Parts: sequence; structure tokens; C-alpha cells
Amino acid sequence: MKQKRIIVTGYGTVGKEFIELLYRKKELFLKQYHTELMVTGVVGSVGMVYESEGLDLSILHQLPTGSIGISQYASMKDLVLESPAIKGDILVECTPTNIETGEPALSYIKKALEANMDIVSVSKGALVHCLPELLAIAKGKGCHIKYSGATAAALPTLDIGEFSLAGSTIQSIKGILNGTSNFILTSMSEGNLTFEKALQLAQENGIAEKNPELDIKGLDSACKILLLANGLLHTNLTLEDVDIDGIDKITKADIQRAKINSCEWKLIATAKKQRDKFILQVKPEMIPPENPLIHVKGTNKGILFETEEMGAICCVGGASHPRGAAAAAMKDMINLIRQE
Amino acid sequence: MKQKRIIVTGYGTVGKEFIELLYRKKELFLKQYHTELMVTGVVGSVGMVYESEGLDLSILHQLPTGSIGISQYASMKDLVLESPAIKGDILVECTPTNIETGEPALSYIKKALEANMDIVSVSKGALVHCLPELLAIAKGKGCHIKYSGATAAALPTLDIGEFSLAGSTIQSIKGILNGTSNFILTSMSEGNLTFEKALQLAQENGIAEKNPELDIKGLDSACKILLLANGLLHTNLTLEDVDIDGIDKITKADIQRAKINSCEWKLIATAKKQRDKFILQVKPEMIPPENPLIHVKGTNKGILFETEEMGAICCVGGASHPRGAAAAAMKDMINLIRQE
Repeated sequence: MKQKRIIVTGYGTVGKEFIELLYRKKELFLKQYHTELMVTGVVGSVGMVYESEGLDLSILHQLPTGSIGISQYASMKDLVLESPAIKGDILVECTPTNIETGEPALSYIKKALEANMDIVSVSKGALVHCLPELLAIAKGKGCHIKYSGATAAALPTLDIGEFSLAGSTIQSIKGILNGTSNFILTSMSEGNLTFEKALQLAQENGIAEKNPELDIKGLDSACKILLLANGLLHTNLTLEDVDIDGIDKITKADIQRAKINSCEWKLIATAKKQRDKFILQVKPEMIPPENPLIHVKGTNKGILFETEEMGAICCVGGASHPRGAAAAAMKDMINLIRQE
Repeated sequence: MKQKRIIVTGYGTVGKEFIELLYRKKELFLKQYHTELMVTGVVGSVGMVYESEGLDLSILHQLPTGSIGISQYASMKDLVLESPAIKGDILVECTPTNIETGEPALSYIKKALEANMDIVSVSKGALVHCLPELLAIAKGKGCHIKYSGATAAALPTLDIGEFSLAGSTIQSIKGILNGTSNFILTSMSEGNLTFEKALQLAQENGIAEKNPELDIKGLDSACKILLLANGLLHTNLTLEDVDIDGIDKITKADIQRAKINSCEWKLIATAKKQRDKFILQVKPEMIPPENPLIHVKGTNKGILFETEEMGAICCVGGASHPRGAAAAAMKDMINLIRQE
């Protein structure tokens, strides 16, 4: 029986769903993976609750997200809120993604690697900033970094590259990696809407954020394809290397032109080999009917790997949901434990 | 640096493609997986060539498949053909699938497990006969059995269940797991052909065998869904537990009826929970347009997992090809080496 001490940084909806899953799956971990998982610390903006023998998840999972839940747990267990101390076996990083600086995730991840911890990251910022550097530090320490939750969550992307295509040569990766922009394009096509109307519909349905720039301008997709390329294709690229174009200039006339040709517009993130190096881009493309990505509708996502040995492999699914992201973090953790 | 001694049993097109891949990927294994792979023995119907320091793949990969290649290698290296001795670290089982008795694969696998070897099986027969028993023996020995090559080859099926859905609850698996019957159904639909004409077309294109019973009567799909259920859902079922119906009674009128409803006929292999147990079946189903399996055309395959935590995940690809099956065996081997 192994024991793993987990620190969760960031206690929003995903962090809370993760605690919920660990609570519900305790028996599974014991029986199937012979591992006792203890969440020893949860870090929020208000501070950290820490218990060296593991927090009581039967209490914690009933409390709200964020600082309120953390504070309530501390007062129920008579604990003092501490300043974050990253120590244990696995860091599960769930703070909000910060593309500009990568913080506070970057500091948490670096501290965790210093303490020889494995990393499961749901947030993208720190990885977008310096995944190759972090992977090198981890390698030197004999630690691992997994980040399915940061690259389309419940849709298997990293796993397919790492496990299902192990040993095969990946020639290109093409993905619909952002559910919001795909919802907007699907609505424009199926409802004959302008971009502005479709965006409004997405906002009314809680799919697009009030400031939708990250999604519609292609930056979110760019972050994900960058992480997939640096992780799976062993490139050492930065966000500046990604040629990015969004969907905000697509018109009703464009949509009609696609329909006449039996095509559909999709925001495609691509990593493909050109001569000896990989080039990365995000741009709207008219997808022809024979490309399986044409069938990815609404907030769903999809990824298409072209390989030398296994032909084309396409995976579709993973509509955005905090539980999906938490489940992605859970599978990363299981795969870490297995690989030891 | 690890060293792994591999025995390959069965030297048809897949066995030969596997040798070809190992030869071409030698550097990859050394660099990325820190493992030196040595094929110490290859077993064909004529006997075994064996060299304890590893066969010379630069010679072997240039020779033909089967007994001819094995005999030529033996005579070039002045070796005596031996009777099969299964010893080493990993058995890669590539003999033709024998549904009736599972032999000779079953004997090879049992001998390999006795010798504490891990198993990578491309052939289905032995596993269909007694996968749960073999898994139990392997567990007792601390060995592993992988068999992606036996469950739709290049299409990720087992991997998705094992790695991408690790920790999630699989509610059902539905798959188009047989490329030949899917080619026939696609041809009937797209070419307005009778079943007989479409079968003839498949035979003329080398897709259906002269005796197509295994494919069109649903037995091949039944074997695959049985292996997926016993492996991923921890059932202990046999082929008798699978309710099997083939595609040979589908008429042009059936196809028309589907089209009127925007549906397509597909031969669907299903494992789904009913009350507390899983039931297994193979039967032609009219797939509605919102089901992603409707887009699996020709010799392609597809699999759809319904899960509690991650929603629906669908993977499509893996058109039948010996290289795809060999690449599936190679990835299994890499994942074995990593899991140690």
C-alpha cells in the first residue's frame, strides 16, 4: 500500500470537484491502485488549511468553494490558516490561469519541484510561460509533470500522444481545442446568425465570458497547441512562435460560402512539421466533409493526429465542465502513480 | 539503461512489420525509453531461430515473412532451427487467431507467464478463451498482459479505457470494431448495393476474406467487445455471454429506411451496464445523426465510451493494416516498460 500526500492550490470549482472525486473514489484508489490518497493541504487566496495526517474530506466536500470553504473548514477543525507551504508528494495546481505572468501557479510549481513533488496542473499560465524549463527541472529531480486539465480537460489529447501513439511518429496535430469559439461557429452555421449575435447567445448561455477575447481571438487555443507541441513533439517554442488568428472576422457570407462547398468553419489549432521543424498556428479553416473534425459541434472539442505508422486517429468529446477538468486531473494523478 | 529480451511467436505480416519497426526505432528506444530491445527468438511453424545476444535485425528485416524468412536467417547465421523455447522478458504473440482452441497462442502465453514474462498479444484466440484466467496468473506473477493489437489495433480502445479514463466510471462501450463489415455497410449505403454485391466488392478489394463468416456474422466484433469488457470493466464473461447478430440479413429496403430517417446502419458491439451487471451484444443498429459513430466510414473503426465523470468520448481511425497492428504491439511494449 502506497501513501500519497497531496497539496491542492486554488480552490475554485475545479479544485472543489477534485476534492469531491477523491472523496467519492477513496475505495477505488485503495482497491485498484493500492494507494491511500491524503489531501494534506488546500491553498486559497485566504491562506492554507494543512493537516499532516490528511484533511477530513467528508467534512471539506460539503463546504463551499474558495476562501469561504477553506475558512469554514479551519474554524470547524480549530486550525490556524497558514501561509502556503508546498510539501508532500503531488501538487494539484488549480489556480486561475494567468497568461501574463503564470503566477501564482509558477511559484507553486517551482516550489513543489524543489521539494521533489510530482505536478498535476489544471491551470495553463505557468506551463505556457516555461513548460520546457519546468520539464527539464522535473527530469533532473526524477519528477513528472502532467497537465491534461490544461489541454482540453476531459478530451484525451496528451494521453493519446503519450500512451496510444507511443513509439509512433506524429506528423501533425490538428485540434478544435476551444469549446466557446466552436459553439459560436456552430451557432452561426446552424442558426444563420452573425458573429455578434452568436457571441451574444454564447454569453447568455454562460458559455462565453463577459470579456471573450481569450477564446474568440484564438489565444486560449494557442496556449493549448503550444503545450501539446512542447509536451508531445519535444519542441521548445513560446507563445510568440504561434501564428494566431481568431474567429471574430468570420461573416455570414463566409459561412454561406462554406455551406455551398459542404464545408464548415472551425477554429483549428495546428502543429505540423515543415522541413525539419514544427510550425504552430491557430486560424479559422473551412473543414471539408471528409475531415472528421467537421463533426465537432457546439461546445465539444476534437483532436486529429496524423501519424506515420497508425494513420489518422481522431478523438471527439470533452464538452467543458468543471467535473471533466477535475476528472482529467484525477486520471493524471493515477497515471503518475502507475508510472513510478 | 534497461535491456529487454523479446520472443516473437508467429511471423506473418504483422510479426514481420513488428521486426521492421523495432529495427527502424532502435535509437528511439535507447534515447527516449532508455531501453535496449533485443529480439532473441522468432518462432514460426518451421521452428525457432534463437540467439541469446539478440538476432541481427538488419539482416532479418530484409528477409521474407514466415518459414522462408526464418529458414533463410538460420542458414545465413549458421543456426540450427530449434523447437520453440519461450524465455526472456516479453512475449509478442502474433500467431493467426484461432477462436476454437486458442492454440498455439495459448500454450505460448502460458509458458511465457510461467517464465515471468510480460505479454503483448496481437492474436485474439487465447484471450477470448480465457483472458480472466490469464490475467489472474499474470497478477500472481507480477506480470502484465497487453493486447491492443487484438482489439482494433491502431484505434486506441484499451488505452483510452486504461489511461484516458483512469478513475472514471465507464457506463457503456459501443464500438464499430470490424472494418470489413463496416466497409460492406458503407458500400451498400453509398453505392445502393445489395449485401451480396457489397460483399463481393469487399472480396475483390482484398478487404473481406474468401470465407467472410467471422466478420459478417459478428463473431470478430464479439471477440473484441468481450476482450474490452473483461479487460476494462473487470467482467468475467465468455463468448457464450455475447448476444451476436451479423449484417448478412440487411436489405436494400433496410438501408433506404435508415436514409429516410437520416440514419446509417452500423454493426455495433456494445457492453453496457444493466442493473448490476454488464451485458454484451453485437448487432446491426440504425445510428442516428447525433451519434458520432455514424461518421465511421469504409474500413475505419470507432469506439464510444459513455462515462460518469467525463461525458462521451469517441475515437475514430485505425483502418486495418499490418503496420497499424504492429505499431499497436509496439506501443503496448513501451507502456509495459514504462509501467515497471
